[in-house]
Amino acid sequence: MKIGVLGGGQLGRMMALAGYPMGLEFGLYDPTEDSCGGQVAPLYTSPFEITDTLKKFVDEHDVFTYEFENVPLELAEYIAQRKPLFPGKDALFYSQHRLTEKNLFKSLDIPVTAFSKVDDRASLLAAGDIVGIPFILKTTTLGYDGKGQYRVMSQGELNELADKLFPEEGDACQDTVYGGVSEYIAEAFVNFTRELSIVCVRDQKGDCKYYSPAENDHRDGILHLSVAPAEGLSDEHLECLQGYAKKLLEKLNYVGVLSIEFFDTPEGLVVNEFAPRVHNSGHWSMEGSITGQFENHIRAIAGLPLGDTDNRSVSAMYNLVGHDIDRAALNLSDVHVHWYGKEIKPKRKVGHVNILAESYSALKNKITEVDKLVK
Amino acid sequence: MKIGVLGGGQLGRMMALAGYPMGLEFGLYDPTEDSCGGQVAPLYTSPFEITDTLKKFVDEHDVFTYEFENVPLELAEYIAQRKPLFPGKDALFYSQHRLTEKNLFKSLDIPVTAFSKVDDRASLLAAGDIVGIPFILKTTTLGYDGKGQYRVMSQGELNELADKLFPEEGDACQDTVYGGVSEYIAEAFVNFTRELSIVCVRDQKGDCKYYSPAENDHRDGILHLSVAPAEGLSDEHLECLQGYAKKLLEKLNYVGVLSIEFFDTPEGLVVNEFAPRVHNSGHWSMEGSITGQFENHIRAIAGLPLGDTDNRSVSAMYNLVGHDIDRAALNLSDVHVHWYGKEIKPKRKVGHVNILAESYSALKNKITEVDKLVK
Repeated sequence: MKIGVLGGGQLGRMMALAGYPMGLEFGLYDPTEDSCGGQVAPLYTSPFEITDTLKKFVDEHDVFTYEFENVPLELAEYIAQRKPLFPGKDALFYSQHRLTEKNLFKSLDIPVTAFSKVDDRASLLAAGDIVGIPFILKTTTLGYDGKGQYRVMSQGELNELADKLFPEEGDACQDTVYGGVSEYIAEAFVNFTRELSIVCVRDQKGDCKYYSPAENDHRDGILHLSVAPAEGLSDEHLECLQGYAKKLLEKLNYVGVLSIEFFDTPEGLVVNEFAPRVHNSGHWSMEGSITGQFENHIRAIAGLPLGDTDNRSVSAMYNLVGHDIDRAALNLSDVHVHWYGKEIKPKRKVGHVNILAESYSALKNKITEVDKLVK
Repeated sequence: MKIGVLGGGQLGRMMALAGYPMGLEFGLYDPTEDSCGGQVAPLYTSPFEITDTLKKFVDEHDVFTYEFENVPLELAEYIAQRKPLFPGKDALFYSQHRLTEKNLFKSLDIPVTAFSKVDDRASLLAAGDIVGIPFILKTTTLGYDGKGQYRVMSQGELNELADKLFPEEGDACQDTVYGGVSEYIAEAFVNFTRELSIVCVRDQKGDCKYYSPAENDHRDGILHLSVAPAEGLSDEHLECLQGYAKKLLEKLNYVGVLSIEFFDTPEGLVVNEFAPRVHNSGHWSMEGSITGQFENHIRAIAGLPLGDTDNRSVSAMYNLVGHDIDRAALNLSDVHVHWYGKEIKPKRKVGHVNILAESYSALKNKITEVDKLVK
């Protein structure tokens, strides 16, 4: 069986590496010629449009998946009409639009922060009353690492933002970041103590498995460290997270790995967003779990039974962002460096380090060791 | 860094898969166009001779290794004069010739069964006195799975064999299997209770690490099952095995993974042979050890520090020889199937199953489960 992956970055690369031992073959599709996945699998280079290369790619593979949620829907549609595509288009549809996604969470009784749609001056000014101030204004589509977002901390700031984005009642949006977007979502601020994420997987028969939820720390808006299982997670929270994951997997008739981010607040869990794909906060599972997320994703889409998702031990994933790590890290016991074969550039994820330990305190010591070796 | 591997079978394939996460790139060289390694790395197809393709292969890679010990020495020489080749030519030289190999063991005080050189009628008849009857006559080069071997169980059989191979004093050898070889080795029969093997690795700085010795069972002359650590292995035997391994690694100024097979006898350990490469009896280490043999081999030849070789738990490797396994095996916890992407043919190694368990009894139960699923 030949698996075609849309996207040839590190996620597609690690999918291929996890799938090869199962005797599967891989092809990756990416507009960028030197995509790092091309070092480990044939790379089809062409824009994310229905090009001749895309048609060839579809012809030459049996089952399709993707490594990023912004796959154009018409492309997904084109593939799904011809060959199996997992996860399906539904997952893309909901995850590509923040308003649709939040409404989906609401319909599934997954706790979500107050939000409202903003598409003109009036609805922006009204958002202050609906969701309360402070709030964050985000574009409904695209945007990452804080791009296309505005923090509104006071009524004065709200008025200023209204003047900036929609100077007069009836004016089109003047946003310069996204060149005049038509739609925003206003989301009430969430006071959270930490971010949690859960990575889960569903196979073609409907069996679901859950990885230990991870606690995630960010640096400069980019994931820095995930620790799994999240320390001190109550059984109640664990049950909640798995229950929410199960609802979402089933609602979307999902096949493959899915991840959901939550805020842990004094009032309980609040969902942030989901990603219909393998997730950076689940990379620890490559060695930290009996079956890693990449392998289970490939098993699911290839119609194979899922593997055990139990932890081998306490685990952490330490991202290498814009920095390499000294090769001396390979001397540390049960520390596994994954380099993606990418040139090092600022803010670029070039690898990650998986760290396994017998206890949280031993884990923290190893993280300190790793930290010292990042250069 | 680009690693060139001579041989594109499952061993080369698993070397590439183990090396990719370290950001290394791979190319494989094999005379066979559909070599399974070609599914995961660029394959250079050409005979094992100094062809234009071989020259291109050497030009396009930085460091070289091999997956089999019968690399022609002139080919090894050609590469070694231009680029680093690990393990070096010495290892090939000794392992390609049973007499040279046995003499090497003897010189290192590694216990070896009685042996003598046979190259004519007189030396064959004399072998009965030198090594005793029964003995096995083997070609000094090539030969595997019993090919090119004769069992001599009595003086009568020895006389018959002498008449068959060398009808008259001074006759050239009449061997039909290898078309008239010029040289044999006579090896005294070893009465052994089990076969043990040790896989070890040495890096470019001379650091050595040892995997747990495995107990190996064969079926029809082909490795069937390896269990590591070998059950009931005494500390004394463990020390001996590591000591012998160390002597050999150092004598050969070895870089990479090496494996040695021993007979466990009531009188102590007796060495059988060594292989200057990753070894089937070490495949369990892929999940069963903190760092698998393929990863450590690549680390060594790439000039990286070695990883921890401790066992995660009791482990077994179950070979898939001429048979597939039902996909239901993927449901078994901590059972990892590695398919090589090869067509199934009689006696062909098409994959293996790594089995981890908390105890030997749990391991045996899992092996029984796996056995039922082989079809």
